[in-house]
Amino acid sequence: MNRPFVHRLRVRYSECDLQGVVFNAHYMTCVDEAMTELWRQRVAGGYQDMVAQGTDMVVAEARLRFLSPARFDDEVEIEAQTTRLGTTGMTTELRIAREEETLVEAELRHVFVATDGSGKAPIPDEVRRALEPALSPRR
Amino acid sequence: MNRPFVHRLRVRYSECDLQGVVFNAHYMTCVDEAMTELWRQRVAGGYQDMVAQGTDMVVAEARLRFLSPARFDDEVEIEAQTTRLGTTGMTTELRIAREEETLVEAELRHVFVATDGSGKAPIPDEVRRALEPALSPRR
Amino acid sequence: MNRPFVHRLRVRYSECDLQGVVFNAHYMTCVDEAMTELWRQRVAGGYQDMVAQGTDMVVAEARLRFLSPARFDDEVEIEAQTTRLGTTGMTTELRIAREEETLVEAELRHVFVATDGSGKAPIPDEVRRALEPALSPRR
Amino acid sequence: MNRPFVHRLRVRYSECDLQGVVFNAHYMTCVDEAMTELWRQRVAGGYQDMVAQGTDMVVAEARLRFLSPARFDDEVEIEAQTTRLGTTGMTTELRIAREEETLVEAELRHVFVATDGSGKAPIPDEVRRALEPALSPRR
Repeated sequence: MNRPFVHRLRVRYSECDLQGVVFNAHYMTCVDEAMTELWRQRVAGGYQDMVAQGTDMVVAEARLRFLSPARFDDEVEIEAQTTRLGTTGMTTELRIAREEETLVEAELRHVFVATDGSGKAPIPDEVRRALEPALSPRR
Repeated sequence: MNRPFVHRLRVRYSECDLQGVVFNAHYMTCVDEAMTELWRQRVAGGYQDMVAQGTDMVVAEARLRFLSPARFDDEVEIEAQTTRLGTTGMTTELRIAREEETLVEAELRHVFVATDGSGKAPIPDEVRRALEPALSPRR
Repeated sequence: MNRPFVHRLRVRYSECDLQGVVFNAHYMTCVDEAMTELWRQRVAGGYQDMVAQGTDMVVAEARLRFLSPARFDDEVEIEAQTTRLGTTGMTTELRIAREEETLVEAELRHVFVATDGSGKAPIPDEVRRALEPALSPRR
Repeated sequence: MNRPFVHRLRVRYSECDLQGVVFNAHYMTCVDEAMTELWRQRVAGGYQDMVAQGTDMVVAEARLRFLSPARFDDEVEIEAQTTRLGTTGMTTELRIAREEETLVEAELRHVFVATDGSGKAPIPDEVRRALEPALSPRR
C-alpha cells in the first residue's frame, strides 16, 4: 500500500545549462510538478479543489542532494513518498532517477495555509485520508 | 527628448543553454523586465501603481529577430522606444545590444486591460502623458 | 499527408504569473519543446542525432500572437506545420490550443548551422526527406 | 575581514507565481547568481577564468528554509559567507533579506571538478587564497 507515487517526465532543452546538464533550480520545478501530480492521483479534486476550498500549501524547507546529473532528453522518474503528516505540516521524500540510477534525492517540508491570508491551517481531512494509507515514516 | 529608454543587465548562468548562449525564451523575460524599468523611470508610481489603480497591460503580439547570441556574463543594454500609443494599445520597439553590436531586435504590442476582468481599457492619462513626449513613430 | 504534428503538454504551476496565466516567455519554451518532439517523431534519430552528425539549428526569428491565456493545469495541444524548407532555413507555423480554442499563434524561422562554428549549413538530406512530405506552404 | 559578501537584486515579474510571491525554484537561481558575483568580486578573473584554467564547480547539496516570501519588485540582498573550505569541497551559507527581514536561509555545498571530465579536483590555490581570509566556520 505504501508504494511511492511515481511521475515521469522528459528533460527539456531549456532546462540544460552550459555544463550540459539540468540546471539545479529546475529540479525544484520538477519536484513541484510531481507534488501536483501526486495530488491529482490521490486527492479527490486535486490541488485546485483544495485551494478552491480555502487551503493552500507552501514549501517551508527543501533539501536536495545532487548525485548525478540529468541530461537533455533524458526520461526521468520522480518518486514521492509522504513521510510525515503533522497538524499543519507535511514532509515528503522524493527521488529523481533515470532507469535504476538515483540522480537527485530531495526532501520537502510543506506547511498548509489558509488562502484568506490568516496563516497556518490544519491539513484538510480529505487530504489526510488520501495520503495516510501510503504514509511511510522513513524510506 | 525622444531618446530611447535604456536598461542594463548581465546575463545569468541559468539563462544559457547547451549551445553556450542565452536560450531564446529568456530574451522575452529580458524585454519584459525592461518594460517594468521603463515604467519605473517614466510613469509616476511605476507599473505597480497603474495596476493598483485598475489598469494592467498584457502582451498581444511579440516579434523577435535573433541576430547574434548573448553569452554568459555579458553585460547587455536593452533600448526601448514607444512607437505607437493608440486608444487601448501600445507598440514598443526594443533592441538588445552588447557594446555596439545589436543582438536582438524585438517589437511588442501591448493591450491595456481592466484589472476587474471587464476587458480592454483605455491607456491611463498619466501613462499617455508620461510616454507621449518620447514617442517616435518609427526608429 | 500534410496533417500538422501535434504535441500535448500540461501547464506547470511554475509557468504561471501574478496575472494567473502562463507568462509569455514560457510559450517560447513550449514551442521549442514541440520542435524537439516533431524531430523525434519524424526525423530518424531525432534532434540529438542531427547534432551528433554536425548540424544544429537556431531560431532566427519568432512571432507570437497571444489570443487567449493558458492557465495552470490546462492541457494544451501544440500543432506544428512546416511551411517552408529553404536551403539553410526553415519556417514553421505553430498553434497552441486548449480544446478547440486557439490560445497562441506562432511562427518560427530556424537557420541550420554547422556545429563546428563555421556558420550556416544546408538542411541535412535526411531532415529534408523527413519533413518534405508534410510541407504545407501556408495553412 | 570576514564580513559576508552582499549581492543586491530586484525581483522580476517572471519570477512570481499565482500565490503572488517568488516561486521556490527561483531562489536557487538567485543564490547561484550571488555565487558568480562573489567570485567576480573576490577571485581574480572571476568564475570564467577558473573554468578556463580547468576547474569548474557543481552544487552537491542545497538546503533552503523559506521564512517569508519575496514579492514582485522587491529589492533584496543576498549575503554569502564561506563556512568551509575542504580539499575538493566548499560550504557557503546564504541569506536572502529584504531590509532587515530574513526571507530565505540557504546552505550550498559545492564540489570542484576538472573540466576534462576526470572527476573531483582540488580547490585551486588562487580560489583558496581569495576566500580564506573571509572564511567563517559558522555564523
